Order: sequence, then C-alpha cells, then structure tokens
Amino acid sequence: MEQVLAPLREAVREQGDLVHQLKEEGASEHEVSKAVAELKARKKILEAKELALQPKDDAVDRVKMEDTLKRRFFYDQAFAIYGGVSGLYDFGPVGCALKNNILQVWRQHFIQEEQILEIDCTMLTPEPVLKTSGHVDKFADYMVKDAKTGECYRADHLLKAHLKKLMSDEKCSAEVNEMEDVITQMDNYTQQELADLFVKYSVKSPSTGNDLTPPISFNLMFQTSIGPGGNMPGYLRPETAQGMFLNFKRLLEFNQGKLPFAAAQIGNSFRNEISPRSGLIRVREFTMAEIEHFVDPNEKVHPKFSNVADLEIMLFSSKAQTSGQSAQIMRLGDAVEQGVINNSVLGYFIGRIYLYLLKVGLSKDKVRFRQHMENEMAHYACDCWDAESKTSYGWIEIVGCADRSCYDLSCHSRATKVPLVAEKPLKEPKVVNVVQFEPNKGAIGVAYKKDAKLVLEYLATCDECYINDQEKLLSDTGEFSFESEGKTFTLTKDMVSVKRLQKTLHVEEIVPNVIEPSFGMGRIMYSIFEHSFRIRQGDEQRTYFSFPVSVAPYKCSILPLSQNQEFMPFVSQLSEAMTKNGVTHKVDDSSGSIGRRYARSDEIGVAFGITIDFDTVNKTPHTATLRDRDSMRQIRAEVTELPGMVRDLANGTLTWAEVESKCPIFEGQETSKKE
Amino acid sequence: MEQVLAPLREAVREQGDLVHQLKEEGASEHEVSKAVAELKARKKILEAKELALQPKDDAVDRVKMEDTLKRRFFYDQAFAIYGGVSGLYDFGPVGCALKNNILQVWRQHFIQEEQILEIDCTMLTPEPVLKTSGHVDKFADYMVKDAKTGECYRADHLLKAHLKKLMSDEKCSAEVNEMEDVITQMDNYTQQELADLFVKYSVKSPSTGNDLTPPISFNLMFQTSIGPGGNMPGYLRPETAQGMFLNFKRLLEFNQGKLPFAAAQIGNSFRNEISPRSGLIRVREFTMAEIEHFVDPNEKVHPKFSNVADLEIMLFSSKAQTSGQSAQIMRLGDAVEQGVINNSVLGYFIGRIYLYLLKVGLSKDKVRFRQHMENEMAHYACDCWDAESKTSYGWIEIVGCADRSCYDLSCHSRATKVPLVAEKPLKEPKVVNVVQFEPNKGAIGVAYKKDAKLVLEYLATCDECYINDQEKLLSDTGEFSFESEGKTFTLTKDMVSVKRLQKTLHVEEIVPNVIEPSFGMGRIMYSIFEHSFRIRQGDEQRTYFSFPVSVAPYKCSILPLSQNQEFMPFVSQLSEAMTKNGVTHKVDDSSGSIGRRYARSDEIGVAFGITIDFDTVNKTPHTATLRDRDSMRQIRAEVTELPGMVRDLANGTLTWAEVESKCPIFEGQETSKKE
Repeated sequence: MEQVLAPLREAVREQGDLVHQLKEEGASEHEVSKAVAELKARKKILEAKELALQPKDDAVDRVKMEDTLKRRFFYDQAFAIYGGVSGLYDFGPVGCALKNNILQVWRQHFIQEEQILEIDCTMLTPEPVLKTSGHVDKFADYMVKDAKTGECYRADHLLKAHLKKLMSDEKCSAEVNEMEDVITQMDNYTQQELADLFVKYSVKSPSTGNDLTPPISFNLMFQTSIGPGGNMPGYLRPETAQGMFLNFKRLLEFNQGKLPFAAAQIGNSFRNEISPRSGLIRVREFTMAEIEHFVDPNEKVHPKFSNVADLEIMLFSSKAQTSGQSAQIMRLGDAVEQGVINNSVLGYFIGRIYLYLLKVGLSKDKVRFRQHMENEMAHYACDCWDAESKTSYGWIEIVGCADRSCYDLSCHSRATKVPLVAEKPLKEPKVVNVVQFEPNKGAIGVAYKKDAKLVLEYLATCDECYINDQEKLLSDTGEFSFESEGKTFTLTKDMVSVKRLQKTLHVEEIVPNVIEPSFGMGRIMYSIFEHSFRIRQGDEQRTYFSFPVSVAPYKCSILPLSQNQEFMPFVSQLSEAMTKNGVTHKVDDSSGSIGRRYARSDEIGVAFGITIDFDTVNKTPHTATLRDRDSMRQIRAEVTELPGMVRDLANGTLTWAEVESKCPIFEGQETSKKE
Repeated sequence: MEQVLAPLREAVREQGDLVHQLKEEGASEHEVSKAVAELKARKKILEAKELALQPKDDAVDRVKMEDTLKRRFFYDQAFAIYGGVSGLYDFGPVGCALKNNILQVWRQHFIQEEQILEIDCTMLTPEPVLKTSGHVDKFADYMVKDAKTGECYRADHLLKAHLKKLMSDEKCSAEVNEMEDVITQMDNYTQQELADLFVKYSVKSPSTGNDLTPPISFNLMFQTSIGPGGNMPGYLRPETAQGMFLNFKRLLEFNQGKLPFAAAQIGNSFRNEISPRSGLIRVREFTMAEIEHFVDPNEKVHPKFSNVADLEIMLFSSKAQTSGQSAQIMRLGDAVEQGVINNSVLGYFIGRIYLYLLKVGLSKDKVRFRQHMENEMAHYACDCWDAESKTSYGWIEIVGCADRSCYDLSCHSRATKVPLVAEKPLKEPKVVNVVQFEPNKGAIGVAYKKDAKLVLEYLATCDECYINDQEKLLSDTGEFSFESEGKTFTLTKDMVSVKRLQKTLHVEEIVPNVIEPSFGMGRIMYSIFEHSFRIRQGDEQRTYFSFPVSVAPYKCSILPLSQNQEFMPFVSQLSEAMTKNGVTHKVDDSSGSIGRRYARSDEIGVAFGITIDFDTVNKTPHTATLRDRDSMRQIRAEVTELPGMVRDLANGTLTWAEVESKCPIFEGQETSKKE
C-alpha cells in the first residue's frame, strides 16, 4: 500500500516545498494561492487513494442504513406531503430523542464540567451585526441561472461536472491537462474569471441545454424584514457565535469581571444552500453548539490541561499535510509541548472534544483532528483544528476548534464604539505616558451643533499612533478630517489639540482572545449513525444501532410475551417505575413474535429489553428477563429490581458485565421462539 | 366588595342574555357580533374592577423585580450594543438555565409520563403549508403609517389611545358615549370601517402630527425565500403545530397504526408584531411547547382521567362569563360530569397542565382556566380552555387547550390529496355500497397524455355525492369538467363511467380529532418571575426568587468564608462531587462578606448554599453548613455527605424538613457576620 502511495506523497511534498519557497521569496499573492490550490488538489488525490486502499471490513452499507433511518422515522424530508423541500429535514421520535440526548450529554460534558455560562439569543438578527461580522459581504457562493427557466446552479459544482464530462470524452484528450488545472484552481477564481471559463467551455444548463447567465454572487443567509416598516432588514443567524460576542459585557459582569470564562449557546442556525445534497451533512437549517472561551492573551494556559495531556489522538498537522504524510497518533501533551498545537487552552479543548465524541458513540479510529494550513485559516485566527469523522462520504468536518484571537470583540467594539474589554489588576501600579486629543467643546459645538457628540466620541476612541499622525497634519496644514456614521468632519487647531500626560494605572484594559469550539450537531449525529450501524452476523435482515446507552433514544423496551390480560399489570408496574426513575422506555405489546419485537427494538437502538414471560406471571417472586442489545445476552431478575438496574446501566454506575455477574443468565425466549 | 360589583355583574348578565336571545331569534351576524363585543367590554370592566378591589398584599413590585432581572441578566434586550431591537430578548446564564429546567420538567411531566412522541421540525416553512392552515390569509393585524416618516402603528391601539385622549378632554363630553362605543367594538371593524373612523376622528401620527395612511392589513409572519431562485416563498413558522399534522402518517405508523397517540414539539416560533411591548409577554421570537393528542372522535374518554378528577381548580366557564359571575373553584371530575368541560380527554389535559404550572412555580391562587365563549372560539373547535395567570398586567393567557376536532388533518388532506386517516378494525365486517368512477385509462391517456395521471388521481379521490352529480351531467350533456393543479379537464362518456358495487369492510377509516395543549414558555417563565419574587421582611434591599428547586437555575452555591488557600481544596471537592451528581452549582469565592454573597445567591434564586467556614478547615470530621434559601435556616453536615443531600433535595426525594430533623441546626455565620 505504501508503495502505491509513495509517489503521491512525494507529489504533495514537492508542492508543499514550492509553496514555502514562494512565500520566502515574497512571490505575489496570486502565485502563492495558485500553488496552494495545486497543493490542496494533490492532497485530495492522496487522501482519496489512502481511503480507497483501506480495508473495507468496516465500511457501512449506506443504502441499508438510510432505509432503516427513513423507515423507522429517525428523520425524513420535511413537508413531504407538500412535495418536500430539499435541505430541510424533520426528526421523528427516535431521531429527536437521540438529538436531545446528544445535547444533554454535551451540556453535562462541557457546560456543567467547566461551569460555562450558557445563554440563549434570538435567531433573528438585524443587518448591522452581520455587516460587522463580515457575513453580509462574504458569506456567499457563486451561482448561475438557466436563462429561460431560471433554475439555479452552484457555479463551481456545475463547471466541475461539465469539465469532468468533457474529460471523459476522449476527443478532448489534448486539453485534459488544462481542464484538470481549472478543476484544481476552482476555489481561487474571481467572478470574472469564472464567467470567462463558462464561456470558454460553453457550459449550458444541464437539464434544458439553455444558455446560462454569468455567475453572480449569492448570499447564503435567509433574509427577512423585522418590524412592519420594511426599514430594518434582518437575517436568520448563520452561526450562534455572534450572540455571545454581543453579550460579552453582561457576561463579564455576571462573572464578576474576571477572566477567563466561557459562554456557550445551543441553537439553530440557517444557511440558504444553492443546491443542498448529501442528506444531513449539508442542510439549510441545523443545530449548532458553540463555546466562546474568553481568555487573557498573555495567559493562554489551561489549568486543567494535565487532565487530557495523556490522551493519544490522531492528529493531522499542517506540516504533515504539506509534506505528504498521513495523520499520526500523538500524545496531546507532546503536541502542545512541541508546538504542533499552539497553546494548552486549544489543546485542552481538543482533548475534551475528543472525549465527547467518543462518549456519544463515534469510533476512536474514525476520528481525527486536522489542522488548517496557514493559507486555509481565516486571517485573524492564530490556530485552527477541525475534528473530522470518517464516513462513507470521506472525512467530514464535524467540530471546528479555532483560536480567533481578539478579532470578533474588536470588530464589534469598533462598529458600536462600545469598549468590549476586561480590566486586569496590575501587580504594581504602573506609570504610563498617555497621548490624547484635548477637544475644545465650545468650538466643536458651534461648528457641528448636534453632531458635536459624534465628534467627541470619535476623538475619545483614537489610539496613540493615529493621534500622532493627525497632530502632524494639524501643525502642517492646520486641520484634519475623518468620517463617522457616513459624515465627514474637518477639525481645525482651535477645535482640538493634543495633550501628553502621565497616568498611574492600577488596572490595565485587555481585549480577551477567544477560543471557539463549534459543533455541528447534525453532522455529529450522522457520524454516530454510520459508526454504530451493525448487521447481525448470519442475518442480513437484522440491523441495529449500537448507540451508547447514554444517548440511546429509549433506554429500555418492555415486551409482554403474550397479549393475555394477566401480563398487563406487570407492564404497568414496570412502566410506572421507569417513569419515576426517569428511564425512557417503549412498550411493545403488539402481537408479533418476541424475536420480531426484539429486532424492531434493536433497529431503533433501544439499549435493553425486558420481557415479561409466563414465568413472570406464574411464579413468585415475579421475575422477568433483561436483554442487552449488543450481545443479545439475557439475565433474569425480580421485576421490582429491574427499573433501578436499567437506570444505573443508563447513567453509567453499573455495567452489563456486573449485571451478568450477579444475576442468573437466561437462555430462553429468543432462541426457542425466534421466527 | 360584592356591593360595588353587583351592578357590573348585572350589566354583564343582561348583555349575556341579550346575546342568547339574538341568537335564538336568528338575528344577523352583524347584530350578534356587535352584542358580543359589548358583552366582552362589560366583562372587561367587571374584571378590572374585581382586580382593583382585591387586597394588594401580594402585588408584585414590578419595577424592583425588573431591575433584578436585568441587573442579574436573567434576560435583556437583544442587540443592545447596536441600539437594540424591540420584541427580541436574549436570555443570560440564569434565565437560560431556568428556561432549560422548565422545559426539562415539561418533558418529564408530559412526554415521559404519557409516552408522547416528541418530534423536531424545521422553522422554515414553505408558503403552501401556511396557506392551507389559514395563516397566509388571516394571521394579520391592521396597521397605519405616518405618511411622511413611514413610522408604523397598530391601527386599533392608536385609535383607542386617540379616543381616550379625546374623552379626557372635557370639551368633547357630548360624544363620550359614542367614543366608548367605538372602543368597545374595536375588534369588530372591517378595514373600511376602521379607515372611516380614522378620518372621522382626525387621527394623526402621535409623534409627528403628520397625516396617516389608511389602515392596511399586515401579515404577522416573517417572510423569506427558500433556495436561490426566489420562486419558493417561505415563512418562519408562527406555531409548531403544523409540523405534527404534516408528519401524522409517519407518526401513526411509528405507533403501529394505533389510536390514540400524542405527538409533541418544543421549539421557537415567530410573530412579527407591529409594535411589541410589555416585555416577555409579547415578543417576536418565542419558545412554544405543543402537544397534539390524536383520538378517535367516538372514543373521547381518557383512561387516566381518574388520576386528576379530584383536583380542585379555578374554572371560569363560558356560562359564568356571560352571566356576570366570577371564576369558581370546581372539582375537575364534577366539571366533566356536568358537561362544563366537553370531554374527559380535555379534562385530563386541563388537570395535567394545572399540575405542571404548580410544579414549575406558579401560585395556586393565581392560576385559572377560562373557557372560550362560543363566539370567541375558532369555528372548528368544539371546546377551548385557556390557562391564565394573574400578573401585574392582569390575567394573561399562558396555555391554550383546545379540542380542534378534525379540522387540521382534513385541511391538509384536502390540499395535498394525501389521506390523513387512521384505520380502525371493525368488530364485525360490514358490507357497504360503494360508488366510484371507472376510468377508461386508454381514452384518458390519448386525450391528456402526461396529464392523464392527474386525471386518474382526481377521479380516485371523489366522494359519492360528487360522483352522482357528475353522472347526471354525463348522461344529460355527455361530459363534465373539473380543475386540477390549475388545469381544466373535460371528460366524456367514453373516458369515464360510474360503477356501483358492494364491498366487505374489515376496517373503517377515521379522521382523528385533535386535542391541542399549547404552551407559551416565555409567558409561563414571566409568570414564575412574578409569582416567586420576594422581598425579605425588614430589608427592602434584599430580594429573592423562591423558585422550586427543580427549576432553580443553580441548585447550590459554594461559598468559602475566606479566600485563604486552605479553603480551596474543599471548594474543589464539593464542586467535583456535585458535577458528578449532576447538581448545577455556582462557586462564589469573591471577597464580599458572607451575608452579601448569600444575598447575591438568593437574588438569582439559587436553592441552597454551602458555606465552608473555619470549622470546616480546622476540625475533623470536616463539616460545612447548608442553608435553605427561603427560610434562611441552616444545618451542619459532613462535607462528603452534602453533595448527595443537595442532589436528593433537587430531585425531590428529600425535603428540607427531613434534613433539619436529622442534622444539627446551625445559627452562626449569617447573623454574626451579616453586613
């Protein structure tokens, strides 16, 4: 296998070296980004080959799995009786229960464990907020339309499909290299370049053959209008993070002014995909859970890092990626020590995210953390790692974990003129030189009347460097100008001067840095489905989901062997006791055989099953059987003991092995009465 | 008090009689609705007087309460640093925790107890769904705009405020009666009548004095566009109920085809209020929890009704309302038996809703159920009761509980041609006469090509009465026509005939009725705030919320008496043990006095407080004190015992009285070290 991969690895390494070299030589941005795109393409080829060469034993039968998910209504297309809407899904009873449980475990694992401040903000968001965050201008994809029918296509997807088709036509073999080049560079084209390529390759509408409009930028946010006037445009939020930045001051105050602290939010976000596909992985409405950990930039050290330092995690560092290596299992402590991971706060969250993913049912060997390469990273982030899960769609991003430095708070602070800072007591008072504008309020008032307030506010927020520049202008030209809220103001020497003084500081103001773990709950859920879908050995028709007990939609089934009335009191007794113990359960008193009902219960991943049989009814003390879904092994215990036993199994204070060690094994119903 | 009320009661009764009389005489709809409006107005006057005459001891100090809610960030205006948006609120850490707990108790109380099928549907909803439900056409308020500035006002609010101002000007006293009449009739005016009234009373923009545009109908749904083409208008859902109707078939199948069953959904809904006010009570984005209980219309009997039959609940029946009586405390069983409540399914839910409201902290004497009067009720509902809570805004609706008969399923079924029915096995097979169209597929295919499918589908869904009519047309004129999906089809004798046959049925199809309890979570939360806000006797500055332990945002505070390092291990030990036990808690190790920190903890409604004092550190066994928020009484127990004790107090298996009976009472810190 390594033999096949060696040349591909070499190709990546060469290109990685080229990128480094170009950067060192100070090559143009265009040249660098072209080389990076080629690097990414070579990486993709390598990864596809790696995946293709891996043993197929553990590959999931997606068709079979999706059939189960749909048939048992884990989730399904929304508005189906009205023809359905792509990219929108409804979760049925078992899907909804699973989702609630995953979120509940998330709350325990993060919010309760770390004493995080959970908040709940509105999804409706007025435009200025998303203008500041950059979403209004940049959260977009290019789209082309069928000139006659108006049908829309994502430009890059369509062009790529078109080129691939051309390439498979042998006639065009001469231009294959060029077309491959275009595919490689797809993410880098400007609107105009894309338009030219559509013309060059005569791309037409795939469904009608009609002409296409030139590519236009399509913003992916759902727009609406808040209030009746039509003058407050708003959007459905594309992420939950903004709510935490906007409430920073209130949260800091709630935390009594102290850093570090973290806020979190669980809720829906929206993304108006041009043409959604791949099921739960790319949808238009989805649940996220995000944490913003606010920390003093000079103290990026996590006191609890040692709790996770010994975890061995598959890491795919930026360096490994640019040199054609595979992801490697590494001790988290070593990764931070060696600088592979930027700091121990980020390292701590990577460890905790990893533990969470395993807890809710992802397979250890199908989870890795991939570092963003320098050119992939948003310009403000100083390090970023994605948790990725291996699925039948390849490795997909399920959690992002970024060190966003002070970017978000600074942006909102600049836009609103509200300082979003924390105060840090100095160990010793510090005398500092301060440079500030000294406005002449009278003169400014005369000149700018009711706008004088804007001018004074502006002057109060300027930094030293800017003040020095303006001071020079004042002395050279007698005035300087600036803009605020769309108006231009010119200030002259009589309106403003510059003052230098010394101040004794007891506290310093700092703009916290933000570490942001951001979870896509739908994608995590989809990964759980793939990683826990099983087929019973020797019986292709019997499938089940081996969900961990803590997230299983129901903890227990209650199955009376007969519909005879004598069985019913035991059903009620068990059901009531379980409700009292907070154990979710499902009674199946239908007439199907016990084997069939076990199969039905397994299919929706119910963790345990209690069967009330003739011995339960006829013998005292009344006992019933308890069955473990994964092993299908059964024990027998008193009816009164069973609800507490299942509760303890569900909350993890009791294991199935312990149950087997203290109760008699039972080998009756399923073998004898299986259909 | 009754003396003052007697004439008001009499006035209501007279008007109630008049309404009955008009109906019996078959008076015109206009006459009846005028009389009903007057009846409502008289009821309102009576109720206002009743409220005004009640003792003020338990009136909440709203200003003080709202100050606490804002200062401690239970909730606050969203986007405040961007100037805020009215009708949108963010919940801070304690508000969010309280909300999560209220929802969690709701899940236990309803979903787990009744084995309800919880689902989770999208908020984005395509237009046809809401067209069917009636929201596109009817979910609207009238609005007028300032002709110059474009500022918007709710027409009825503005007209009412204008008339009240006129009435207070003594000059106009002659027209006072007429104006009172207009206010009384406000809800009944058509668009044109409203427009005329605005002209007649020369209503101008209150903030500028400018002219106003005539009233226009403003739909209260937030509109957006799904997908990139702009050809799929959609809305944010105005209620969660539709998702359950649309998934009816999948849910029925999940329940193995059996009735009754209930579905539930918790999630956000949206309502673009013209001018929202009164805080959490009228907002633009809010959390609802709705149940749809599907039941065979011939079997509206709830098997568990006896569990709630003995509850004594304040009921305000339609009859009491029209005859000027007050709400009366009634045994639920009697209310159903006497037909005050239509059936025991509705009765069961009323009982369960009542128990839920008390569980989450509403005061028994501030909750009542008010029946909709016949003219208030949607035309499809056969009985409807609102749970109302008494607040400083008066009695407000917090839960609706309606028997919606088969309305919703029938509408969607008609619109989509998908039968939304359940099958019920007949006790004995039944032979029935069936009339159906017998299409000649060949002839139809020739005539309508690819639309032939539409024709066949249409013919298959026609009912007997319609078929008989068309048969007559066929024999008289040789053809008949119909429309489907906007196209007109004409069928002739050679394309279709009518066939009569007998069928033996083993099952019958029924359209289930729906009982719908619908909870406004924000309003319930607001009611909890008002009903549990307390001021310590003798200290106006010390306020607290006496939330039930189960919903308290944090169950316990951990307060080290000193910041000395020796105290810290005990803080960690307690905190870790509580996390392990799932007990939410908050450490306050700031330097404030213990009294001050207790006060701070009480203010956010933390149920208990553990104080680590010098005895904890210096003596073995290590003990600490545990304090009950409401009584401020304290006991002393071993540090290792305390987390389990708080857990049991929180989940209700232990009471404070039991704690006091087995642990030594402690009377130290607060009295001695109070500020």
